Amino acid sequence: MATVSLLNYDEAPEEVQKVFDEIKAARDIPDVNNFWKALAHDPVTLRRVWNSLSQVMKPGALDPLTKEMLYIAVSIANNCEYCIHSHTAAARAKGMTETQYAELLAVVSMASQTNALVTGMKVPVDEDFLVAPDTAGP
Amino acid sequence: MATVSLLNYDEAPEEVQKVFDEIKAARDIPDVNNFWKALAHDPVTLRRVWNSLSQVMKPGALDPLTKEMLYIAVSIANNCEYCIHSHTAAARAKGMTETQYAELLAVVSMASQTNALVTGMKVPVDEDFLVAPDTAGP
Amino acid sequence: MATVSLLNYDEAPEEVQKVFDEIKAARDIPDVNNFWKALAHDPVTLRRVWNSLSQVMKPGALDPLTKEMLYIAVSIANNCEYCIHSHTAAARAKGMTETQYAELLAVVSMASQTNALVTGMKVPVDEDFLVAPDTAGP
Amino acid sequence: MATVSLLNYDEAPEEVQKVFDEIKAARDIPDVNNFWKALAHDPVTLRRVWNSLSQVMKPGALDPLTKEMLYIAVSIANNCEYCIHSHTAAARAKGMTETQYAELLAVVSMASQTNALVTGMKVPVDEDFLVAPDTAGP
Amino acid sequence: MATVSLLNYDEAPEEVQKVFDEIKAARDIPDVNNFWKALAHDPVTLRRVWNSLSQVMKPGALDPLTKEMLYIAVSIANNCEYCIHSHTAAARAKGMTETQYAELLAVVSMASQTNALVTGMKVPVDEDFLVAPDTAGP
Amino acid sequence: MATVSLLNYDEAPEEVQKVFDEIKAARDIPDVNNFWKALAHDPVTLRRVWNSLSQVMKPGALDPLTKEMLYIAVSIANNCEYCIHSHTAAARAKGMTETQYAELLAVVSMASQTNALVTGMKVPVDEDFLVAPDTAGP
Repeated sequence: MATVSLLNYDEAPEEVQKVFDEIKAARDIPDVNNFWKALAHDPVTLRRVWNSLSQVMKPGALDPLTKEMLYIAVSIANNCEYCIHSHTAAARAKGMTETQYAELLAVVSMASQTNALVTGMKVPVDEDFLVAPDTAGP
Repeated sequence: MATVSLLNYDEAPEEVQKVFDEIKAARDIPDVNNFWKALAHDPVTLRRVWNSLSQVMKPGALDPLTKEMLYIAVSIANNCEYCIHSHTAAARAKGMTETQYAELLAVVSMASQTNALVTGMKVPVDEDFLVAPDTAGP
Repeated sequence: MATVSLLNYDEAPEEVQKVFDEIKAARDIPDVNNFWKALAHDPVTLRRVWNSLSQVMKPGALDPLTKEMLYIAVSIANNCEYCIHSHTAAARAKGMTETQYAELLAVVSMASQTNALVTGMKVPVDEDFLVAPDTAGP
Repeated sequence: MATVSLLNYDEAPEEVQKVFDEIKAARDIPDVNNFWKALAHDPVTLRRVWNSLSQVMKPGALDPLTKEMLYIAVSIANNCEYCIHSHTAAARAKGMTETQYAELLAVVSMASQTNALVTGMKVPVDEDFLVAPDTAGP
Repeated sequence: MATVSLLNYDEAPEEVQKVFDEIKAARDIPDVNNFWKALAHDPVTLRRVWNSLSQVMKPGALDPLTKEMLYIAVSIANNCEYCIHSHTAAARAKGMTETQYAELLAVVSMASQTNALVTGMKVPVDEDFLVAPDTAGP
Repeated sequence: MATVSLLNYDEAPEEVQKVFDEIKAARDIPDVNNFWKALAHDPVTLRRVWNSLSQVMKPGALDPLTKEMLYIAVSIANNCEYCIHSHTAAARAKGMTETQYAELLAVVSMASQTNALVTGMKVPVDEDFLVAPDTAGP
């Protein structure tokens, strides 16, 4: 159950169908998944999010699988059930092995443990970890 | 400022010095960073966390830089200031380029946006994303 | 399923029934929703939370719909499924249009994106955004 | 301190200066704030985030102040220090009174309390709060 | 720095001074801490929060120190810097030993690790952990 | 549904069965719960997590029930549905009364409320709450 209905291709206005077509073509899938059907009630956000996602997730200095695994890590930390399922499935489709997935879960959960330890003790940041905002970089 | 003092090598008991020595040797650094000095008040947890971290972060199906970037992603989502600074510095030390870092931030923030959209609409998970718990796998 | 049973009016002690009656009267509904039935196992907390909620959500410098939308925003950020459903339904009952809801989701998710970007870079706060604690105000 | 330096107008490439100019013009301010100077290391994300933010925050079915208050609510729930300061300052600049701010804080904190109560008890969602995904709407 | 100034006793209206007096008497301290001085801009919320906190934290089926440690655990998970510092100091004042504190941190961080593992794998809840909402209890 | 299948004793490799046997013996239960069956796909993490959990949760300066309640508090704040159910069941098995549970929920939710208030106002930490990192202790 959701807070909005899922809009299917046939019920959708032309501008929404156009985005759906782009998604299906880009991913070579017969139909878009539920996230897009729910978002379709707002064609402007649907268009903006799809364009942004395409730009962010395309191959770059990081390969698509690494980006997908980072997406999973954030989705776990944010506890987004839908995103965890969809991006884990996407990562597997992009070649994530079960061993890589196991290591991903090990890192994500280990990070959550040390994050809590550090936050609990409010450890001061070591000077040499900081970048002076007024320096040339990085 | 913190909720505990930072324990330096000279003040530390032998079991703590042993862990500090292992950390310095493994990372080839002259001194351990503040996290370890704060954790040193509890030798048992210090030993357990160092052993676990060494096991989780060692090269495997995922390379050390990818693991470091996953660590940054989780630390950002959990908003752990110390961890964000220490692991961003560590990733750079392991060769993360500024372009890779920029893409990491783009993915992490994009994920946070779609996580919120999906969570807000409580979109039902597509059947084909799920793995039946009683199947052979994965 | 839950960690406690849902206490219905007839099974409830008099002090609980009194709060249930106040909720039903204030909202003009035939029965209280599950949150109150679950909380009813602790009459003291039930009374405190109902009194606090009534005080916080009543018309003031902010109108009830704006308060309801703020409640949805927080519930999404905290990923409280029950609260997301109940307050989205409540906001609609108070007149939230689907266009307003779409904009609410756009703002909440956009904020989550920039929150993550800023947190990841640990951007220092601009001096002129700060209020000196020892000034007269605001 | 931050994980990146703050890029000032004079050091920035032309495409960044163009975005800075748009921000200064749109907000009628002499200089952009630190968030944009930090983000400037990635001109593509800078452009995308500014375009998205402009679209999301412009007057619509919700007025700019209501959107700004929703932004504060999310930033508090996500504990983004920079965002809390910048958007609270922005809301005040858009006319938020101290009484409205006090009510905003009361709603945000009250929501956090009931979110925790509901999450702790895992209260099942009332049937009538749900929208069947396959219905016509909303 | 904060988003509001800190209101001191002498500048505060009578209703605020009354709450400050109750806090100082209840805790036997010469002055209230910054949280109350910041909250003092909203006398209604100040009164409600103080009354609620007094009721919640008073000795009951759980002793004050256990309640204080639960407060620290939540403050760490919510990453509330001020609360982590104030409640850790309060717990120590109530007798929390450094060994108890070390164990608290170990449990909180271990929980964060398994929380992330379970959330990442979306493990289905074992039937026998659930309480049917329509049963007599608990 | 989950992202991995649940591995049962008979299908599991010997190293996994050994951990399952230890868990069953330590808890005197006929079968391990789903968390362990899901984690079993990664014998190394399974072993590490079980060893760590046994060490962290064993009786110490804090009794097992207090540790279990701290675990529930963190699981609620992290919104881990599985963990909330499993640790609430475990706490009840260890003797947590419904009154203690009600007080736990009251403290956890009250903390979430004041956490949000403090975070929203970004109240500066009182000097006397801080421990100088370079002091002898605590």
